Amino acid sequence: MNLDTTGEDQIRVITVALEERSYPIVIGEGILGSLTSYFDEVFTKLSHVVIIVDQVLRERLAPGLQASLEARGCRVSTSAVPSGETSKSIEELNKIWEFMSAERTDRGSIVVAVGGGVVGDLAGFAAASFARGLRFVQIPTTLLSQVDSSVGGKTGINLSRAKNMVGAFWQPSLVIIDLETLRSLPTREFAAGLAEVVKYGVILDANFFEWLEQHQAAIVQRSSAELVHIIARSCELKAQVVAADEREITGLRAILNYGHTFGHAIEALSGYGTWLHGEAVSMGMTMAARLAVRMNFIPESLLHRQTDLLKSFGLPVGRPELSFEAMWQAMQKDKKVQHGKLTFILPDRLGHVRGFDGVTAEVVREALYSSEW
Amino acid sequence: MNLDTTGEDQIRVITVALEERSYPIVIGEGILGSLTSYFDEVFTKLSHVVIIVDQVLRERLAPGLQASLEARGCRVSTSAVPSGETSKSIEELNKIWEFMSAERTDRGSIVVAVGGGVVGDLAGFAAASFARGLRFVQIPTTLLSQVDSSVGGKTGINLSRAKNMVGAFWQPSLVIIDLETLRSLPTREFAAGLAEVVKYGVILDANFFEWLEQHQAAIVQRSSAELVHIIARSCELKAQVVAADEREITGLRAILNYGHTFGHAIEALSGYGTWLHGEAVSMGMTMAARLAVRMNFIPESLLHRQTDLLKSFGLPVGRPELSFEAMWQAMQKDKKVQHGKLTFILPDRLGHVRGFDGVTAEVVREALYSSEW
Repeated sequence: MNLDTTGEDQIRVITVALEERSYPIVIGEGILGSLTSYFDEVFTKLSHVVIIVDQVLRERLAPGLQASLEARGCRVSTSAVPSGETSKSIEELNKIWEFMSAERTDRGSIVVAVGGGVVGDLAGFAAASFARGLRFVQIPTTLLSQVDSSVGGKTGINLSRAKNMVGAFWQPSLVIIDLETLRSLPTREFAAGLAEVVKYGVILDANFFEWLEQHQAAIVQRSSAELVHIIARSCELKAQVVAADEREITGLRAILNYGHTFGHAIEALSGYGTWLHGEAVSMGMTMAARLAVRMNFIPESLLHRQTDLLKSFGLPVGRPELSFEAMWQAMQKDKKVQHGKLTFILPDRLGHVRGFDGVTAEVVREALYSSEW
Repeated sequence: MNLDTTGEDQIRVITVALEERSYPIVIGEGILGSLTSYFDEVFTKLSHVVIIVDQVLRERLAPGLQASLEARGCRVSTSAVPSGETSKSIEELNKIWEFMSAERTDRGSIVVAVGGGVVGDLAGFAAASFARGLRFVQIPTTLLSQVDSSVGGKTGINLSRAKNMVGAFWQPSLVIIDLETLRSLPTREFAAGLAEVVKYGVILDANFFEWLEQHQAAIVQRSSAELVHIIARSCELKAQVVAADEREITGLRAILNYGHTFGHAIEALSGYGTWLHGEAVSMGMTMAARLAVRMNFIPESLLHRQTDLLKSFGLPVGRPELSFEAMWQAMQKDKKVQHGKLTFILPDRLGHVRGFDGVTAEVVREALYSSEW
């Protein structure tokens, strides 16, 4: 199997080009069986792999991956991580570090993360920090992690009061996205992933947004061709942004935060686990679009198109049952706030957003809390 | 105060030029009083500083630094770390992370480490990982940390069984070395720092080695002019190596490991705290030079010059009371070992070393354990 397969029907390869190097994202159905051939393309040597896998996937996925690597003469160490956001903790991180140390992991070892965003973030930070940096392969198994964590290199864990507060920018060497992993994904989680897909359309690509409107039914039915397209296009769009601002310095990357300033506040205030991340982002995008309407940046019709598309994917678009005061205070704690300056990412037309940092509490309150939706 | 002061008597500024950016190391006596003027040269904005200080230095140094920063309108959060290697732990790291979170540290904040290598490594990794990376200033207060940790960007903590096993390459924005901090340094710690100074001469600069031989007495008396020179030259030499191999990829940086493969094993087997790092390195360099003599790379006279210089600085040069088998096994665990291949850094003439990876256990045993020293 060769990575020059961009033209083939079933497999798409996206290249993420970064300042120092680039890496491939391979997207296709049933491609995990060819794992070692992709490894051979990317790594010159393969002697030890550490697999960090979500506990619920361990039995289904780990034995096959392990067997194919071992058949290549590679030593494999596998550790499972409990499902859920609470695993992005210092305790789980320390367990992985100690496991890697006990398994004689060294600078030639490769870390492979198999699971959703939680496992990717946790294993990615373990890879970034162990021996000051190991090579890292991501096998994201949820739609959200496929369209979001595959590109960007963000890894990390949560502190007691702050989500993703500790971590590293650490790029993978290879990402493998097997559509088969989506076949058993619960409807709610699948929809949560679609929230980020819609986001890419709104912030960067009006044509893609329209394509999503037109293919809504096939997407919900998880048709392979549509899945490949939404994953590939989302990764491409995100890669363009990340390549231009890998470490969030110029501020360009902040446009990916559309819906997230509100969304993070919703997640934090509702208690993590009440809403899935993508659900909170869906509500957050709705709030951002309402604010943009209030500020006369976009017509109300665009807000409705966004709301209709999110709703058709089964996503929540109502106002969360949280007071304005609580929301506003929680938003000030977002780690993207620099010295108390809150920047709102708002659309000014379909496929385009800008950052606004002069928005007062009063305007936000009026836009979102002065009347029923 | 301007950073273009290279010509002045009392202050030297070394520029460490890395791939992406460079940073200054300011060396002088009594320069901590001018802290904010150096900050002004390097940072365009200064609104929040987190000072992480060694507990024993807190009362002596923190109030002055804090006052001068606060006088500039900067908010300051200060946290003390217990002295000693045991602070390079996941527990202390987590305490700092939670402290920074509680103090509303954000991406505009600057972390300042005040202390020796332990505080620098710990605070440096906290800076590297909090909010995925904060700017970082080092104020090293021991000779070892001044000549070693000032350049190289290595930060990290220890795992239960492995020293420095977790961390990041994270470069400081500014290093300030005030000779006054050396005035109260215990003799044994001062000598330990000199071990690394001798190392730079042996591996990179025959002239510098000879200069050390000639100025041995003034160095031991901690004469200012000689201190500035040994610190500046050590930093310059290390900077040359690091600039060429920032992330230890090409292997060039491995030459800095001269004496450390043996030294780390001595530290690990003796129990951390028995020998200071520099003392273990002094014994390690003696072992490496003996091995080089056995392999006919250098004449015995060079071994003796190195031994004499180390001894004149009060450093141990005898064989540690550890069996060959224990030493050999411990060396295999060094994190620089890739897939079981141990590389020895050995001199082949004064001021020059090379890496040798074909050295067998038998040769090492014979060189170091077949007779009394």
